[in-house]
Amino acid sequence: MHLIAIDWGTSSLRGALLDGRGHVLEECSHPRGILTVPPGGFPALFESLFGDWMRPTGSFCLISGMAGSKQGWVEAPYCPCPSGRVEVGDAIIEIEPGRIAVVPGLSDMHNGVPDVMRGEEVQIFGAMALTGLSDGLFVLPGTHSKWATVKRGRVTGFRTFMTGEFYALLSQHSILARTLDAQAPLDEVAFLEGVTQADNGQGLLHNAFGARTLALFGRKPAGELASYLSGLLIGEELRTQSIHAAGDLVLIGSPTLTQRYLLALQVSGNTARTLGSEATWAGLHALSGFLNAKKARS
Amino acid sequence: MHLIAIDWGTSSLRGALLDGRGHVLEECSHPRGILTVPPGGFPALFESLFGDWMRPTGSFCLISGMAGSKQGWVEAPYCPCPSGRVEVGDAIIEIEPGRIAVVPGLSDMHNGVPDVMRGEEVQIFGAMALTGLSDGLFVLPGTHSKWATVKRGRVTGFRTFMTGEFYALLSQHSILARTLDAQAPLDEVAFLEGVTQADNGQGLLHNAFGARTLALFGRKPAGELASYLSGLLIGEELRTQSIHAAGDLVLIGSPTLTQRYLLALQVSGNTARTLGSEATWAGLHALSGFLNAKKARS
Repeated sequence: MHLIAIDWGTSSLRGALLDGRGHVLEECSHPRGILTVPPGGFPALFESLFGDWMRPTGSFCLISGMAGSKQGWVEAPYCPCPSGRVEVGDAIIEIEPGRIAVVPGLSDMHNGVPDVMRGEEVQIFGAMALTGLSDGLFVLPGTHSKWATVKRGRVTGFRTFMTGEFYALLSQHSILARTLDAQAPLDEVAFLEGVTQADNGQGLLHNAFGARTLALFGRKPAGELASYLSGLLIGEELRTQSIHAAGDLVLIGSPTLTQRYLLALQVSGNTARTLGSEATWAGLHALSGFLNAKKARS
Repeated sequence: MHLIAIDWGTSSLRGALLDGRGHVLEECSHPRGILTVPPGGFPALFESLFGDWMRPTGSFCLISGMAGSKQGWVEAPYCPCPSGRVEVGDAIIEIEPGRIAVVPGLSDMHNGVPDVMRGEEVQIFGAMALTGLSDGLFVLPGTHSKWATVKRGRVTGFRTFMTGEFYALLSQHSILARTLDAQAPLDEVAFLEGVTQADNGQGLLHNAFGARTLALFGRKPAGELASYLSGLLIGEELRTQSIHAAGDLVLIGSPTLTQRYLLALQVSGNTARTLGSEATWAGLHALSGFLNAKKARS
């Protein structure tokens, strides 16, 4: 029986057609994130994008990500930490019973301030299935990076870092934008200078200004400055995390991003396993297996 | 003899007509920062704005701020720290000898990364004249806040923090903008919550996301979130500075800003003297006095 696996985000979505063992038969992506869907428009859009894959009898679709948020198709309330595959599987919301369902995200609370993820929990479950790890620190770099601690197969807590969004803001909208080429390829030396600089105890508000003055004084060309700023931000993210104490470290994301995090981790003598989009499909496959087993029991 | 004192910034300028003792006779401000001046347009603009004040024989004009930068009227190269009134006074550049001159800024170097100020050095000299202090920590909150250490009347070093610019970026261009009212008046309780939160060891990239999730969970209304974010940023700025070791603390800036810094300083049991625009005029007056004495000697 086929599983249609979808990671439906804010600005885009990715889908995969999986066979009964979770192998990817086809993949697609569309610039149709939830913000592009008019009110009430989810069923029609879904049929137009995935109608063909859903045709065979018994096809089932499991959706993760922002489609389960208040602004999405159907709201699937957050599961509070600690939560694993069982808690999340039990809280899956059926949109069309037996045909389409949406996975809830996770929430965590730090001294009265909530933290949330939607979609990353599925990638973490997938990474656990692919690596065989049930303990460790799972890091998902991106616009809003997530650092999740996993113990005995459950996410016991996590934190979000606005690293990717800060990079976009600073490189496009701040005074740094005038002297920085955000499209330049990675310059490893400048990147690592930024990572090291982030650890100088002066904080991001000060260190970011250095990316301006280095240009004013002609000490770094525009292309290197983008890598330097990227290093400052990723270094700032790593600075606050106690990586050594965490055991295995797993990075999940696009190769361009995980490469940068690996480089930054090497500065403090750390390393990590890396996974890409396969973690999403493995996670949705694992959750659908849990749903099937639950049905069989009931 | 009259002094025409001008603080010519990037987006606007302020001017004052001072009598021989430095008392303000008239003040003005114009939205004619250096970025609004066409190439070669400085002399004509200056005459149109200040021609009347310059009419009396012997009138002298001293300009601080970005008018002395590469993009300004005439470049006045930075004085490296340590520098005091003498070093800066000696490096003043005459635009029209005996009639118009521009004050250089200061530079400081931290492990190969330069830091710069233009205009704030004059406010610091003014604050020293007004308070009688020749040692202390002088803090100038703003788009790019400056923290300057003064010893025996000279600025021995300083650091810039992009606090005001980060507030504008996050409150207007980031995901926080959707649930935050940047125009709301200060809410002291929410502000102080942000200041305290900034000290939790998790860093700004994480803590800023809390200003989003507090809204998602309905825990803070849009107006309070603006104050909370402001507290997070000012708290992050204060976190990295060793205030206790610094002796006297002087805050120079607009009352709306210095009020926030005073509140944040109280959390760690600190206090400060505060000064406003009078520091600029006192600083330019002091420098013109130095120039006169130098002329008299030669």
